[in-house]
Amino acid sequence: MNPELIQPLSVARRKLIASLQQPRHRREHRLFVAEGAKCISELTDTFACRMVVATHAWYERDAMTLPRGAELLKATRADMERISSMSNPPEVIAVMEMPAEAADSVPDGLIVALDGVQDPGNLGTIIRACDWFGVNTIVCSRDTVDLYNSKVIQATMGALARVGVRYVDLPRWLAELPASRPVYGTFLDGDNIYSAPLAADGVIVMGNEGKGISREVAAAVTARLFIPPYPVDARHVESLNVSVATAIILSQFRKNQ
Amino acid sequence: MNPELIQPLSVARRKLIASLQQPRHRREHRLFVAEGAKCISELTDTFACRMVVATHAWYERDAMTLPRGAELLKATRADMERISSMSNPPEVIAVMEMPAEAADSVPDGLIVALDGVQDPGNLGTIIRACDWFGVNTIVCSRDTVDLYNSKVIQATMGALARVGVRYVDLPRWLAELPASRPVYGTFLDGDNIYSAPLAADGVIVMGNEGKGISREVAAAVTARLFIPPYPVDARHVESLNVSVATAIILSQFRKNQ
Repeated sequence: MNPELIQPLSVARRKLIASLQQPRHRREHRLFVAEGAKCISELTDTFACRMVVATHAWYERDAMTLPRGAELLKATRADMERISSMSNPPEVIAVMEMPAEAADSVPDGLIVALDGVQDPGNLGTIIRACDWFGVNTIVCSRDTVDLYNSKVIQATMGALARVGVRYVDLPRWLAELPASRPVYGTFLDGDNIYSAPLAADGVIVMGNEGKGISREVAAAVTARLFIPPYPVDARHVESLNVSVATAIILSQFRKNQ
Repeated sequence: MNPELIQPLSVARRKLIASLQQPRHRREHRLFVAEGAKCISELTDTFACRMVVATHAWYERDAMTLPRGAELLKATRADMERISSMSNPPEVIAVMEMPAEAADSVPDGLIVALDGVQDPGNLGTIIRACDWFGVNTIVCSRDTVDLYNSKVIQATMGALARVGVRYVDLPRWLAELPASRPVYGTFLDGDNIYSAPLAADGVIVMGNEGKGISREVAAAVTARLFIPPYPVDARHVESLNVSVATAIILSQFRKNQ
């Protein structure tokens, strides 16, 4: 590491990076923030890295292979607190470039569609579950939480490198699917997921944390599913968390494939 | 609602409630905080409510049946911000009494044992999944995140009313289990959960988010399980989130029962 390559973090850069906590500024600059060495190193194979910001101590330890072509910036702990979204800021933060939106074509194989999922942790956990179960495409309604929210980026643990996420007009996207592609959704009156037929080219729609699947999207569902509670007639229970429900459904789709 | 029953929030009460964000003060006072009308109303059947703190506007709307015997306290928005753990404080917060620790006996039926789970959201989501799948007992190692952390309370969505959680010396608790009770754990070299025999009186051990199951606890595991990724030989993927893995395993235990 040539220390001369490392510049102090300017006020302008600091303000730019802090502004990336807001979706509007992320969209404007086409940039997002990844926090912590593990998260950054998992993403640098997939996303171009524009800047690395770290404390002097971190550069001294030289703990990570630095991404090529990135500006290297040195910051104080106080600066790190100002640009981090975490209550306990890491020693290194990177600014990454958003890739161009994926093409509009509908890929083969299992797809997960999210209808208004709001919690960043849930989106991140769903991306990880998709990665585990070999689902490469997630299609989100426009009111789903922003993928580049730093809490989502943290929760994905690098799975974002292998799972493509795009935002669409979901009712329209579903309406334009080939008629041969089944669309699954979970509803209280759905078929037991342990016995229902589950197709390997299905689209699995998961709804908002509080409101479930919207009326417009529900109209496109061709196969209604249900994860039975135990005992099956238990009626007192709250619904499952959406990321948990997604993972249980994916495990059922994959177990016989 | 007799408005004379509602007292202004004193500084002493405000400080007491704010202190309950720390485990040490929760243990000392045997009290914890529930935030938001939905969460509170789900818990008041199970936990005694000591105080209700709400804004004037909230009492005016009288939106919830108030728990009997609770002190009713009126607070400003600024007060609510000081006593809430949420970045967007609710209009009502309740202080609830911790119940006495459950007896030491080992209940029949499926049990989930957590070995050092650290994230409050994960513990909350695991409690909800246990509620859905009819698991009434969770046994936690002493280094597992505190149940009465307000983020856990929020994430449980009332499931805490039906699922008993206790903290024990986990290696010792496992060692003292009857030999007839199988102890399951997930490991990379475990048996495929879709085909392994799963007993309805099993104890399912789930490990820490980063480190997994500790060596001491692993020694007590009698049946090693594995949730296969898709495709089965995928080796690039990160592990599943612990709450997601717990829910997938519970769904497999319950599907044939």
